[in-house]
This record gives sequence, structure tokens and C-alpha cells, in this order.
Amino acid sequence: MTKFIRYILILFCLSASGAVVSAQTTAAPVIGAQVFIEPGQSPEQIDSWFSILESCRMPFARIRLFGSHVMKEDGTFDFSLYDLAFDSAERHGVKLFVTLFPPTDELTDVGGFKFPTDENHLSQVGEYIDHVVSYFKDREAMYAWVLQNEPGTGSMSAPKTPLAAKVRKEWLATRETKERNGYLEADWTEQEFLVYYTFWYLDWIYDRVRIHDTEHYTHINPHQILNLLPEYDFASFEKILSSLGASMHLSWHFSLFDRAEYPVGISLMSDIIRGNALSNPFWITELQGGNVTASGYDVLCPTADEIAQWLWMGIGAGAEGIIFWTLNQRAAVSEAGEWGLLDFQNGPSDRLTAASEVAGSVFHNSDLMADARPVKSNISILYNNESLWTQKFNANIIKDTENDARGADAVMKSVSAAYKAITSWGVIPQVYDMKFFDWDNAEGRVVVLPDIVAISSEYYDDIRGFVENGGHIIATGLTGYYDENMKCAFIGDFPLADVFGAQLREVKHEDKYFSLPQFQGITLDSHLWRSILSPLSGARIVSESDGEVYAVRNTYGKGEVLWYPSMINLGCRHRNESALSDFYGEVLADFIGKAPFHLKSKKDGVIVRTMHSGDKLIVIAVNKSDTVVKLSPVTGYTYESTLYDNFDTDSCRSGRKMILKPQECSVTIWTN
Amino acid sequence: MTKFIRYILILFCLSASGAVVSAQTTAAPVIGAQVFIEPGQSPEQIDSWFSILESCRMPFARIRLFGSHVMKEDGTFDFSLYDLAFDSAERHGVKLFVTLFPPTDELTDVGGFKFPTDENHLSQVGEYIDHVVSYFKDREAMYAWVLQNEPGTGSMSAPKTPLAAKVRKEWLATRETKERNGYLEADWTEQEFLVYYTFWYLDWIYDRVRIHDTEHYTHINPHQILNLLPEYDFASFEKILSSLGASMHLSWHFSLFDRAEYPVGISLMSDIIRGNALSNPFWITELQGGNVTASGYDVLCPTADEIAQWLWMGIGAGAEGIIFWTLNQRAAVSEAGEWGLLDFQNGPSDRLTAASEVAGSVFHNSDLMADARPVKSNISILYNNESLWTQKFNANIIKDTENDARGADAVMKSVSAAYKAITSWGVIPQVYDMKFFDWDNAEGRVVVLPDIVAISSEYYDDIRGFVENGGHIIATGLTGYYDENMKCAFIGDFPLADVFGAQLREVKHEDKYFSLPQFQGITLDSHLWRSILSPLSGARIVSESDGEVYAVRNTYGKGEVLWYPSMINLGCRHRNESALSDFYGEVLADFIGKAPFHLKSKKDGVIVRTMHSGDKLIVIAVNKSDTVVKLSPVTGYTYESTLYDNFDTDSCRSGRKMILKPQECSVTIWTN
Amino acid sequence: MTKFIRYILILFCLSASGAVVSAQTTAAPVIGAQVFIEPGQSPEQIDSWFSILESCRMPFARIRLFGSHVMKEDGTFDFSLYDLAFDSAERHGVKLFVTLFPPTDELTDVGGFKFPTDENHLSQVGEYIDHVVSYFKDREAMYAWVLQNEPGTGSMSAPKTPLAAKVRKEWLATRETKERNGYLEADWTEQEFLVYYTFWYLDWIYDRVRIHDTEHYTHINPHQILNLLPEYDFASFEKILSSLGASMHLSWHFSLFDRAEYPVGISLMSDIIRGNALSNPFWITELQGGNVTASGYDVLCPTADEIAQWLWMGIGAGAEGIIFWTLNQRAAVSEAGEWGLLDFQNGPSDRLTAASEVAGSVFHNSDLMADARPVKSNISILYNNESLWTQKFNANIIKDTENDARGADAVMKSVSAAYKAITSWGVIPQVYDMKFFDWDNAEGRVVVLPDIVAISSEYYDDIRGFVENGGHIIATGLTGYYDENMKCAFIGDFPLADVFGAQLREVKHEDKYFSLPQFQGITLDSHLWRSILSPLSGARIVSESDGEVYAVRNTYGKGEVLWYPSMINLGCRHRNESALSDFYGEVLADFIGKAPFHLKSKKDGVIVRTMHSGDKLIVIAVNKSDTVVKLSPVTGYTYESTLYDNFDTDSCRSGRKMILKPQECSVTIWTN
Repeated sequence: MTKFIRYILILFCLSASGAVVSAQTTAAPVIGAQVFIEPGQSPEQIDSWFSILESCRMPFARIRLFGSHVMKEDGTFDFSLYDLAFDSAERHGVKLFVTLFPPTDELTDVGGFKFPTDENHLSQVGEYIDHVVSYFKDREAMYAWVLQNEPGTGSMSAPKTPLAAKVRKEWLATRETKERNGYLEADWTEQEFLVYYTFWYLDWIYDRVRIHDTEHYTHINPHQILNLLPEYDFASFEKILSSLGASMHLSWHFSLFDRAEYPVGISLMSDIIRGNALSNPFWITELQGGNVTASGYDVLCPTADEIAQWLWMGIGAGAEGIIFWTLNQRAAVSEAGEWGLLDFQNGPSDRLTAASEVAGSVFHNSDLMADARPVKSNISILYNNESLWTQKFNANIIKDTENDARGADAVMKSVSAAYKAITSWGVIPQVYDMKFFDWDNAEGRVVVLPDIVAISSEYYDDIRGFVENGGHIIATGLTGYYDENMKCAFIGDFPLADVFGAQLREVKHEDKYFSLPQFQGITLDSHLWRSILSPLSGARIVSESDGEVYAVRNTYGKGEVLWYPSMINLGCRHRNESALSDFYGEVLADFIGKAPFHLKSKKDGVIVRTMHSGDKLIVIAVNKSDTVVKLSPVTGYTYESTLYDNFDTDSCRSGRKMILKPQECSVTIWTN
Repeated sequence: MTKFIRYILILFCLSASGAVVSAQTTAAPVIGAQVFIEPGQSPEQIDSWFSILESCRMPFARIRLFGSHVMKEDGTFDFSLYDLAFDSAERHGVKLFVTLFPPTDELTDVGGFKFPTDENHLSQVGEYIDHVVSYFKDREAMYAWVLQNEPGTGSMSAPKTPLAAKVRKEWLATRETKERNGYLEADWTEQEFLVYYTFWYLDWIYDRVRIHDTEHYTHINPHQILNLLPEYDFASFEKILSSLGASMHLSWHFSLFDRAEYPVGISLMSDIIRGNALSNPFWITELQGGNVTASGYDVLCPTADEIAQWLWMGIGAGAEGIIFWTLNQRAAVSEAGEWGLLDFQNGPSDRLTAASEVAGSVFHNSDLMADARPVKSNISILYNNESLWTQKFNANIIKDTENDARGADAVMKSVSAAYKAITSWGVIPQVYDMKFFDWDNAEGRVVVLPDIVAISSEYYDDIRGFVENGGHIIATGLTGYYDENMKCAFIGDFPLADVFGAQLREVKHEDKYFSLPQFQGITLDSHLWRSILSPLSGARIVSESDGEVYAVRNTYGKGEVLWYPSMINLGCRHRNESALSDFYGEVLADFIGKAPFHLKSKKDGVIVRTMHSGDKLIVIAVNKSDTVVKLSPVTGYTYESTLYDNFDTDSCRSGRKMILKPQECSVTIWTN
Repeated sequence: MTKFIRYILILFCLSASGAVVSAQTTAAPVIGAQVFIEPGQSPEQIDSWFSILESCRMPFARIRLFGSHVMKEDGTFDFSLYDLAFDSAERHGVKLFVTLFPPTDELTDVGGFKFPTDENHLSQVGEYIDHVVSYFKDREAMYAWVLQNEPGTGSMSAPKTPLAAKVRKEWLATRETKERNGYLEADWTEQEFLVYYTFWYLDWIYDRVRIHDTEHYTHINPHQILNLLPEYDFASFEKILSSLGASMHLSWHFSLFDRAEYPVGISLMSDIIRGNALSNPFWITELQGGNVTASGYDVLCPTADEIAQWLWMGIGAGAEGIIFWTLNQRAAVSEAGEWGLLDFQNGPSDRLTAASEVAGSVFHNSDLMADARPVKSNISILYNNESLWTQKFNANIIKDTENDARGADAVMKSVSAAYKAITSWGVIPQVYDMKFFDWDNAEGRVVVLPDIVAISSEYYDDIRGFVENGGHIIATGLTGYYDENMKCAFIGDFPLADVFGAQLREVKHEDKYFSLPQFQGITLDSHLWRSILSPLSGARIVSESDGEVYAVRNTYGKGEVLWYPSMINLGCRHRNESALSDFYGEVLADFIGKAPFHLKSKKDGVIVRTMHSGDKLIVIAVNKSDTVVKLSPVTGYTYESTLYDNFDTDSCRSGRKMILKPQECSVTIWTN
């Protein structure tokens, strides 16, 4: 039986994780969905949803355990509604992620509060956890505790509450106070405290859970991750979580992307979460399952093709599992009738059918998929919190809504543009917070820094060493303009001048968008600023016009740096993407060429992810362009078979070229 | 003498009203204007204005009795300024609507406060009323007390004041608290209290007036009515008012309409106010008389043609009277030099001339006009407060300014679109709050529900019974999506599925605007969402594509429902109005055909109102399109004469076709 | 030696100023720059900047004396950092404007607080001043104290602080309370107190400085001057200042202008500051020197050509000196790496080179330039605070962002449009606050009133007398609509009707923009409103259509008024500038013709300023149009030589026509 084999795999994964309660598994990736439990539902309804999951080969569900549903006015708890859910889950072999959701005003607080207000509130949360965890910890369906729904506030400081004040005081007492004895320095105390406090509270929840349950997995699902990344202390999260997750709602979280870019966006966010999960596996904990009417910033109903594309992007990025929000629609008030994979009569939408087909494809190839791991690129895009904070700090002062480069999102927009441009060559760069990058491993690797406006001086030696030992760097935009204290690093002697091969002479506004002089035959656009270099002797000038130098290549030790400090990522984004992919194809040619699979010529609008599995290569390709594309793979592998294709065609029928229609998503197996 | 006859009519109307102090009259409709009285004016100036009204056959004025003008610092009252106004009014046979306007800061509070802050403030208001009413109640010119200027706040809750808190506490004590034992329910307590409190205060004012004066009429003039409707308890208003009024300032209140749609807007608002006046007559209490410079959201000076068009729309809708804001401009600070019918040297503007000509036309046909009553259509557009509240609640969360369907105004925009589309056929639908509609009277009637997103479950039986007994329903857009508690009524088994002939399967976003599959040869546009039905057996599928059903017709009992749940009203509004009028022409053909007068083929941009008067039919037609139109009436009546035409032509010279130039407004008399 | 001669000139200017500590000099204008001093800089860096100034013939610098840099935690002061600056300045012959900048939070308060919060704070400011002034007053480099950086708040009232409350109470006690005995009157108490309080605090600082130093000059630099003008009591400023200054940052303060209009904007603001300096000289205290990234509303890096154009506009307007913001970039946090004339390696940008070349041109012609004074036009554009307050008051209520005429900036937008139109004829009107205009000097002078919406009744007699005595007035737009109390002056009998030759009958909205009937062959556009006059007998109708009168000319006494009350300035601004310059050319022909230099035919996009120097005429011409222009001067002077040309050509090579390429700025000398 399908279910049975699956279940065995899960059990295997559970036992394999052992004492550290880490969820790292060798099972094939799984697909599930949020079953939204609420008073008013009948036992039959609840059972129907778990039954549907079973029949769709989606053996994982997430439920939200509303405090306001289970806590009675007299302080006692009544779990009967949720007992029905656990009973059904067990009846249908479904494992549960259970989101802790202490009592709150359901009418006004849709996502749950992120911090208790005071000690009393904290102790109420504790009681809620005590009751819930001790009651459900021995249930067979129990899989993982989601410590909090979507931690993260989007603020630049912790809330002004008695509890925060108390924790802040203790925290401040442990910090050294810096004496000012030089240039003015930015003060990140509030941001740093927000990071501390966010972890402090999650850790408090974790400890409370562990009083009762030392067995089950723990998980959280950050959201709006491109905006909220600098609120999370992922290194500390690693210690209390079994897996890291993320919410990826296109209607809420994808404002940086056009609809055709959503697969790129899912791919990028997955890579970011995987990077930050560190040794843990990662999940997409919420993926938009259906239509929105009243909620969401962008109105959207995914198509069946999109569901398939998004799932395969997550799988290709190495997700251990992907959970839709939601299977059944919430019935009342906020989100009523929205987000679901089911239609209003509990029938399958074309989205659920598509998800089930993907689940089936994985299931029928579970051995192969269990061993599948994303091909790790020798290209890494790096970002850091200093840049995200600095950009947000600056953007908050002026509130320029006209110019991408001055918005709070500028850094991540540049990262997205560079990421997308590189993916058009059939390879996927890794994406890391600079602090998690392995600088010592330099040989044959290249770091891409697209408008990373602040680089902490702590990294200057790392960067220098990385290049010295053979690493390459592609630095574009205003990368390195500030240090960690918001001192302009270019004034006077740029500390990395000898490595980068130049001093930055001037940054000069020219126009909202304008063309730069040719760079090796490519005409790139810039946004707002033109940056001029004073090259050091030994550096090779690679773009120059009227005696002004725009870009240099510099050999330093065994490595090399290409520095092109004009705003090419934001200049070309959405306006001249073809030039940007040509640029990255040119400057990364040696690295792309070493990938086990890449494209002979880039295809804008196409994204290809590859996974290793034993001696096989799994190639996941999505065509988001408006035309049929013909891809020419360059690879040492030979086409073997098609694992999945949403158009039920064989995209690689010739065995060499891959032909993809618009919206086609193909998963092919190649062998060595 | 003109004046004399008029005056006799008024006296007749006064005495006819008798003990119940109801203003229901059998006089012909009257036109008047606000005379703005302020310190600094000379007796000669004041007298000139009443003299002008007299000579223009406009025997009604409204004055605002500023507390800050009459209350002295020592607490005594000095009415000398207003005595001048009463004296002049009486001298010139003008009757007065007197607006109670307790002391406030004139510089910052232009429209007057809506609620006193505390008991002390309330008692100050009381003293003001005592003095004013007892002083002027026996004046011959006295006609009606306007209890408050423009009640209504636009808020979703009452202000947080001591007085509101006290009243709220008493009110809460009288309400049953609902136990939650099922789905989450929206909480409308604050909105309901605002409705209660608004009436509570007006009733308090009414009682205070009645201590001194049991004779004269009482009135209020709601404003921004398409937005503020759900703040008013019209059933209670009926008991304390002699007539219901409304402010209709194009510069403040017509943001839903293009300028060419203003006659449609006046017509629609008049129909809404008439519907809510219940057994009382209705007035347009403020109609924009002149130019704005500093005030108003939309800068506008009415043309003479527009003045005529708006007056006739109001008269055609059955207004007992129409009062302009203002005759003379306020002289200083806010509104200085704005809004007036007079020019700056007290001469008549072309607007005043136009108004006077309309007044003259009515006067010269006063017997006919006294008996004239709007033809009541068998077509009714219904709305309800649940939809307005729900839409506002949802809109407040996301604040989507891009998509009409997600704005606070969405329901009224849909109603306006449907209303306008229907009027292009030469008929005017009635417009009602669902709670005032006579559901028992079903035979030969059709109810139009355009995107009425919430239908209280209380009405399910009414709707069922209405159709069973022969009524028809045209339901479009997301009509019925929510019940009164914001539960999504489509999830599972839609309670009206057997009546509507289908379950709603899915609502799916597609694009901001997109074309739907043809509906009986008409290509309608939708906005945001495509809705798919699962038809029940017996229902007739009337729009279908690729196996998906878009619309059904269902016979139930003796009646029928057409259900087309895609967003056609907002999809076609301003973008494809011709398709929408074709649609309503098609689905309402039988009902339009039964009207005593309608057009053989629809004319977009034309609005025609008809009135019965004895065996005559009065036909008011306005052409707001850019071209000369030729209308082909279908009617059992025969053209007799032209009562009014702003172009002084005979629009129906052939006796059959009506020919209207752009901006032409003709009023013709037809006989049986 | 260059430096030496320069220094002698400065000394001369210093000694010439004598006991009144007035900076009125007969030296040639000077150019300087802000040297931004901050902890972290080395003595060598600091010295390099003063050395650069010396070598660029820029012998003036401004420094900001941060309280937070010099005040230690124990309350003592350490001036060592600033001693370095004074030492270097003296070593290189540079004079210093020293900006008093009491301790504040540098991270969040970039421009400095404008008012202390309470008495304690005030006394801290006093101590800071005591220490700073007594310490540096005897330094040779010391030139002027800038009492506060950029006074002015942009608010309509003083801050609600204990100190403001105390001062306000005292101030109120000195004012008569007006009894209301007529029309409602606007209440400007808060605006008037803000003006009083702004001066009160500057005067307090001045007195504190004077305790220690009675020798050196005093100065302030208002900013955002087109918006903040009505906050400044310039008549009082005259008494405590040696010179008046202004900040003119294109990125912050030029939102009213397109980039091609920046020279016009610099010119206009300079004329306004010169007018308000009264008997004092004026400076441009901050002129944008370089690029912005994070700061500034409009992203901009000046070009070298722009630097030259702006400097010459300031010099041509009679500035005693112009100081750039900044020479060296601030290094850290806010403004890090922005605004500088230097590049990041302390090398000269093309902007510094351009500035230095202008400085050199002045230096090589220092005798001529020392005597140069702007030609004073017989044309004066007048504005007043009543109009600025009234417009802001009205704009704050409606917040109309669509229509220029209803925005807070409307008056200054109209003034700018009229100013620009007139400059296209090669002449520069004077610009004055109405209260500083010499009404008694009427013969041969013309006053332009472009949409000056409020005219205090105090000026009615001045205006009447001015015209009676031979003055001319050109009144356009809604000029005179309100009096000082916001009473509409047009209602009834306009008090200036006999002077203006008409009553204003109606102001009527027509469209956002629309064409007016021809005025002497010119088709002007209006914005929003069409105004109709009732001419008095004797007035000459100069624009009329369909029996409606749009403009009259009226002879009164020896003078004449042209009244054209439609919105032609805002109607033509940016849309039909050519018609507007034709209009002003037509109605001002006699006055333009009397200028010592003007153009035979107007050139839109060209601005020409002229200065007298002995029997020479200095002609500064800038071409901001996109094409080469050929100017035909009409002048009694003969071309002699070229003093400066940024294109190193001779723009007047023929000796008659001047030929200017786009962006060319030429300064030529003409002789009698």
C-alpha cells in the first residue's frame, strides 16, 4: 500500500533522528496541507479532509491549535474538537505539525501576537502550552510543534511593553558599552535587541514545550522573509529547532516579483531558508493553496500549472516537505472562503489535483527522490544584515517611493535580479548570509555581491583571504559603500582597494535609468548613479569611457575580483534583463561551465534546478516565458526518462534538446 | 399673483398635515435655497436675498441658526440678526427650514459637531434649543426644524466620549449577549451602537424641540449617503421626522460618479432617500448651487444645464422640494465666496436663472405637478447594511486602492453600475434597503442584487418565498458570499442553492479586468474574479465554457433566479457599459416591457424618469452623451406637449421619436 | 600672490564694516565651502581641506561647531578638534563662518533642533554658547557666527513645549484682544506666535553671543525658503544680523522647479533673500556641492556646468558670497559620502574645478566685480504672508494633490511662473514681500501680482496711491480674493474696484486646464477657474468673449491697472510657457523697454542677469533650452569682452548677437 510504504519511511525518518530530535531525513520530500480546524465543523467534515490528504498522497497536515477554541471561561480546557482532528489524522495516516497559538482575539489578530505584553501574559502562554503539549504529546499523529506562527514583526525595534523592557534591561547589562572615539557610528541597539528578544521568546516557548515533550520535532515558519530576515538569529534557531520553515504566500510576500517570476521567487526564498537552516532540514510551511478575495496584498488564485511549478522549485531546492495554506477554507470572518485547495463543496480544485500529481510522481520515484540533493553551485550570492538594516534606516528617513535604490527593499531587489539573471543559464547560485559562508573554501568558487551596500569591517580579512586563496568576487552596485557603523568605506583609502584593484572615486547621480558605456559588448543600464573608479596599477580596466573607468578586474593572490560599482542590477531589473543575464553569463562563464548541467545559451524566463541522486541527475525546468523555448543542455549526463511533466509530454524527446512550452514544468532524469 | 397662489398651496399643505406633523403634501414640488446669515450683513442685504427668492418663485429658504451668533458671553441670547431674516422671509412669503446649530468653533468646525462630549455639553445644547425654539416657534415664516446639520460621521464606531460611554453602557445592558457555539462570528457591536447613538441623540433633540413646539415640521439631511447609509436607523427616523432630506454636493459627495453621471447619481441618491423616508416625503436639503475654490474634494461649478438636469432628476424622483446650498455665498473664512447661486454683486448667475426657470415651469403646471408621482418600477435593486459593513471591515484591513472590488465603496459602485445600466432603457428601478422591501408582493416583480456580498440568513426565507410566489431575482457578483456573521455561505451547502439552481464551486482570481465567455451573445468583462457554478439538476445553464458553468437560470415555484456570480458590474463599470446595459436589457426584458414608458433600444448616457399624474405621463429625459440621440419610446401614451426644455426646443416634435442634443433636458407630457 | 591680494581685500572689507558689525562690503563676491569637521579626522586631512580652498581661490569656509563633539561627559569642553580647523584656516588664509550647534543627538537630529524644550535646555544652550564664543572669538580666522543652522520648522504653530508656553503667555499679554463685531475672521495667532518665537530665540542667542563678542558678524541661513518665508520676521532679523543667508539645496528645496529651471530657481530665491535682507548684504550659505545617495528628496549630482550657472546666478543677484555644502563629505551615518565637492580621495571633482574657475574669473576682475551691483528692474513681483498663510490654511483642509492651485505652494508656484516668464525677455524683476515695497515710489514702476490670493486691507490705500501717482499694476489669478481676515473681498463692492476698473462677478470652475479666449492675439491657458469681470465705465475691455469680460485695463490717476483674474500663471506653467512669456512681454513692454539691457524677442529657457559696475554693464546669460539660441540684445551698451564662459568660447563674437549653446553660461562686459 502506498500509504503504508510512506508511513514506514516516515517512521524510519523519525527513528533515524534520534536523541537530538533533528528532522534530517533520508525520505523523499513530502507534500501536505493545513487543515483549518474551527468550532462549527462536524466530525464528518474533519474526517473528510484527512481522508482527502490520504488519497492525494499528502500524508502531512498542519493544524493551528487555537487557545481561544480550547480554553474555557472557567480556565479549564476542552480538547474535544482537536481530538477529532488527531483521531482522523491517525485514521488516515497523516502526521501533524501543530502550531501553538495561545489565546488571542481571533477577530482582530489573524496571525497571532508575536510577544506577550507582560509577565502575567507570559505565564498564561505557559499554561496554555502546558495543557496542550501534555495532552497531545503521546498521540501517534503528533509530528512537530510549530513554536509560533510566523515570528517576525517588520519593525526596527521590539514593542514597548513591560516584558520587553524587563528583558531589555537584562540584555543591556550583558553588553559592553562602546566609547566613541572617532567617527559617528550608527546605533543598532534596538535592532539587535529585537533579534535577541525574538529568539528569547521562542527559546522560552521551546523550553516550556520540552518540559512535557522531549521527543517531537520543533519548527517555526518565518514569513515575509526577504524583508524580515534581519530579525532572525538563525544560528540560535538551529539549536532549538528540528527544521526551519517559511511561509511563502504569493499574495502577501511576493511584492518584489512579477507573477512570471514567482518560481524564481520560490526558488530564491527556498535557497535562503536552506542556507539559514544550517545543519537542519527546511520546509515550506505555508504555500498559497487558493484564491484570495478580501485578504492578501496582491489578488491571486494560483493556476494548476503554477502549483506544480512552485512545488518542484521547493523540492528542487531540497525542501523536506511543503505544506499548503490551506486544504479547506476557513469558514468565517477573516480569510472566509479564501486560500483553499478544495472547492466550496469539498471537491478537488485543479490545484489540488496538480499537487496530488506531483506527490504521486515523487511517490513513484521515492528511492530516487529520497537520495536527491540539490546540486551545490560554486557560485554564491551573499547578503548580510548590516546592508538590510542600513538600507531600511536610510529608506525610513526619506521614504522615496520612486526609486528602487532608495527603498527599504533595495538590497533584496538587487539580489533577486542577480539571482534571476544567473538562473537563466540553467544553474542556481547558492544564497547565504555572509556570516554563514565558508570563506576558507576558496578554490574554484565565486562570490557575487550585488549592491550589498554595507560590509562589516570584520569581513575585510575574510574577503582578502578568500581571494588570495583563489576565490573570485563579482562586486556590483554600491557594494561596500558603508561599513557596519555606516561609515562610508570609500572615503580616503578603501580598505579592500588592493584586493578590488581600485579606489572608488565618485558616485554620481545621472538619471532614473540610463545606459552605461559598453562592457565587453554588453550595454547595461544603471539606476540613478554612475560610479567612477581610480584603478590601481596592475588592475585591468574592463569598462572605460571618456577617460573614466567603470569596471576593473584585479588579480590578487590566486583569485580575482571584478568590480563594477554602477547600479546594474537595479538598472536592468524589469527593464533590460537580457543584458544582465548576458553580463553574469560573461563574468561567471568559467563557473557556469563547471556545473554538471547548464545551458549552452541563456534563456530569459526559464529556470532550471538540478539535483544529484546517486549517479543520476534530476533536472527540473520551468518555462515562464511567453514562447516555446528550446534548451541546449551542456552536461556529462545522458537523458534517461521523464519523471514528471505537467503537460504530459516528454520535454526531452530528442534526448538532447529540451523543448518547453510556456508554463511547462518538466522533471527529467539523466544518468552518468 | 404667483406668490399668492403658491402661498395658499403652502398653507393648505401646512393645515393638511394636521396633528401628526407629517409633511406629506399634495402641493407641487418647490425649489428654495439656503440664505447664509452671518454677522456683518446689513438688513438691506438680508432683505435682498428673500426678495430674490420671491421673484424667482423659490418660496422656501433654509437658514442655519448659529449658536455662536446668538449666544452672548454672559449667557444671554440676542436674536436680532435672525429676527431680520424672519422679518424678511415673512415680507416676501418665504418659508424657513431652520437648522439647529449649537455653539461650536466656527473656524474649525464647519459642518457642526455630531455628538456632545458630555452631560454638561448636552445640557448646553438643550439650553440653546430652549431659547431658539421658544423664541421663533410662533413666527409665520417658521416651517421646519432641521434637528442637526448632516448627521453621520463616516466612522465605524461612536466617538470615545463620556456621554457615549454612558449611553453605551445603558444600551449594552438591554442587549442579549450571544454565546459562541460554532463558527467565529463578526462583531458588529460598535457599528450597531453608532446607529443607536446617532438616533438616540437626534431623538433627544427632537424631544427637546417638542417641549416648546409641537406644531412645526422636523427634518434632517444625511450626507455622503452612499457611504454613510449604514449609520442611519431610518425606521426610527420615520417616527420623529416629518420629512427626510439629504445633502447632495457634487463637489463633496459624488466621487463614485463621473461628471456626465451626475444626473444618474442625483437620481439614484434620491431613490435611496425616498426608499428610506418610508411613509414620509423627502427633500433634497442641500444641492450644490455654485463654484468651489478652497473647499470640496472635486472642484466644480455647475453649469446652468446641469442645474436644470439635477432639479428635474430630483423632481422626477418625487422630491417634495429641493433647496440649494447656497443662495448668497458665505463671506469669510471657510467657504468664503463659494457655493452660491448669486454672483458676487448679488446678481443672478446663469445657475439661478436656470433654477428659476424650472421653478416657473412647475408653477405654471402646478395642478399637474401636484398630482405627479414617480412611476414605480417592477424592478428593484436591493442592498443591505450587512454588505456595507462587511465591505468596509474588509477594506479597512488591506486598504487596496487599486481594485474597486476591494474598496469600502465596492457595493455601492456595483449598485450604481447596475442602476445606470438599467436606466439606459428608459426605466428607473426602485432602490431599497432589503429590510424595507415588500417580499410578500412577488408576482411580476424582479429583484436585482449586484455584488451584495452579505445576505443575512434572516432573508433566506424571504428570498425563497419571493421566488416561490412568482418573483424573479438577478444575482450577480459575489452576492451572498457572506451571511450576517461573515460566515462564507457558499462553503458546503449554500442555503439558497435550490432556489438559485446551483452551488457556487469556486471564486478564482484571473486579472484586474478580463472578458468572460459570451452570455447570450454579450461579452461582459469581469473584475478580479471568475466564479464557477455547479448547477443543480433542473437549472438551465446559460453561460458555459470549457466545461465550466458561469451562469444559470433556475425556475423555483412560480418564479425564477438568474445567477451570474462573476464581477460583471464592476468589470463593465466605466469600461464596457454598453455590454452591461445589454445584459440588463436582456435579463430584464419582460419587466422593462411592462413599464408604461420605456425605450425600444437602450441609449447609454441617457436617463429618463417618468411620473404619473392623473391620466397623464410626465417624461423627464436627459442626454449626457456627447452626441444627439434619437429615442424611440414604447408606450401606450401619446405625446401631448412640452412642459420644459432647457434648449427651448420641442424634443418630441414628431410626436413619436424624441431627439435630444447633448446636455438637453426635456420634460414632456403624454396622455392616455 | 593671489592669496595675499585676496586676503587684503577681505581685511579691507572687515575694517570697512566698522562698529555696526554690518558685513556690507565693497569687495568682489567670494566663493567658499563647508569644511565638515568630525571626530576621527586627522590633522593632515583637516589641513588638506583648507589648503585646497586656498589653492582654489575660495578663501571662506563654514564649519559646524557640534556641541556633541566638544562637550565632555563631565561638563568640561575640549576644543582640540576645532583648534585644528582654526589653525589650518589661519595657515591658509581662510575666514570662517562658525555655526553654533548646541548638543543634540547627532544620529537622529541631522539639522539641529530649532527650539529648546524648556528653561533648563535653554540654559544648557547658553553655556555652550558661552564656552564656544569666548574660546574662539579672538581667533584670526573667525569671521561670522551663524546663530542657528536653518531656522524654520514648516509647521503652522510653535512646538508645544514648556518654553514655548512660557514665551507665548508673555507674548499674548502684550497683544490686544480683538472683539468680534462683524464677519468671522481667520485666526492667525498661532502663525504669528511662531514668527515671534522664532525671532525671540534667535535674538536670545544673539544676545548671548554679544556678551562675549561684539566684533564678529552674525548670520543665519533660512532654508526651504519658498515654503518657510512666512515664519521669518526679516525686519527684526535685520537688526541682529550682519548678513542674511539661505540654504539652497536642489535635492531638498527645489521641488517647485524642473532641473532645467534650477538657475531660475537660484535666481528667484536669491532675489527674495536680497529683498528680505533689507539693508544687509546676503549670502547663499549652503549651495549643493555634490551627489546625494540616501538623503535629499530629489536624487541629484550637479554637473560642472550647473555649478557655474548657479554661482553666476547668485553673483548676478548680488550675493556677497556663496558657500557650498560641502567641500569634504561627512564620513559617517547620515549624509555619509554625500554632497561633497571633493572626490572620495580628496581630489577635485569637476564641480570643484568649475567652482574654482568661477572664483578665478571673479578674482581676475576683482575691481570690476567689487563695484558690480544688480541692475534694479522697474518691474517688481510682490507677495505677502497673508497669501502664504491663507493658502496653507486652505490646503491643509482638503489636501488636494491633483491641482496646483489648491496646494500649499500655489502662491509661490504662480510667482515662479511669472518670474520665469519675465526673465525670458532678458530682464529680472525684483521680488519683494509687499510690506518692504516702496509704494511711494510709483512713477515708471510696475507691480506684478500673480495669484496673490490675499491682500491685507492695510495695503488698499498704498495700492490706490501707487496707481494714482503713476504706478502700474498687473493683477492675475485670484489676486485679492481674500483680505487679511480671509473675508472674500470680491463679495459686494470690491474696495479696489475703482482702481482696478471692475467688479469681479464670478469665479467659475471649468476644467483642470483649459484655453481662455484670446488676449491680444495670445491664447493663454487657465487652471481650474475662469473669472468674469463686470467692468466699470471708463475701463477698457481687453479680453472678452460671448459677452463675458475676462480682462480690463483701467487708468486711475496717472497710473494704470491690468486685471486678468483667471489662473493664467498656473495654467501656463509647464504647459504653455511660451504664451505666458508672450503675455508678460506684451503687458510689460514699456517697462522691459526701459531696461539698460533686454532681448528683442523673448527666449524661453534662457535667463539673463545684468549688473552695473561703474560705466560697465556685466551681462550673465545662461541657456537651459535644448537648442543653440541666438539672443538679440537691445541696449545702449557696446560689447567689450568676455569675462567668463564655461565653454571657453566667446558667446558674443559678433559684438551684437549672443550665441549660446545648451548649458552655456557666459559673462560678458559691455561698456557705455
